[in-house]
Amino acid sequence: MNNIFNLPSSLPNRELFESIISNDNILIERIISTGQTTPAGEWYDQEKDEWVILLQGFATLSYEDGSQIKLTAGDYLFIPAHQKHRVEYTSTSPNCIWLAVHGDLKSV
Amino acid sequence: MNNIFNLPSSLPNRELFESIISNDNILIERIISTGQTTPAGEWYDQEKDEWVILLQGFATLSYEDGSQIKLTAGDYLFIPAHQKHRVEYTSTSPNCIWLAVHGDLKSV
Repeated sequence: MNNIFNLPSSLPNRELFESIISNDNILIERIISTGQTTPAGEWYDQEKDEWVILLQGFATLSYEDGSQIKLTAGDYLFIPAHQKHRVEYTSTSPNCIWLAVHGDLKSV
Repeated sequence: MNNIFNLPSSLPNRELFESIISNDNILIERIISTGQTTPAGEWYDQEKDEWVILLQGFATLSYEDGSQIKLTAGDYLFIPAHQKHRVEYTSTSPNCIWLAVHGDLKSV
């Protein structure tokens, strides 16, 4: 049985992106962050909508308007395509486990 | 901030299905089970693929071939469209919190 909380015995010194479900329609991925943040001055500017939930750890995201969002385990949010965002902080004790869904997720 | 683990102060005496993201393409929903199971002799036979993760509690699913799958927090699985399945058991202490994604999820 696959378990989202089962981590590899050794983690690389970078964020780990693992595809769980992937086709032209959708990507469901697990992301493991071990203290990494988005490099200074850089932004995520994604072609697709993202729904993301933090399942373990603590993290802080920020938007272009300067607002910051602190996340703890279970917190989730919707990031529309092209809404620029950065990861300002990810905890290492425990490491962060994210589940992200990418696709056309806008409500009709 | 929305948190998947925040439950209503009172839960109904039935499973609770709450849509988080919904359009023609995809449905992301939270399901809260408080001991409910699929009625005897009934099966889920879904038009769409489902990816489901149990985030809290303990549960047992079964398939038509008689195989049973025991799930604990973090366990996830892919259920292709029309793969008949039942929920045989859901815990009440703690209650079960599921996150399910429905859509065209088949890998290309």
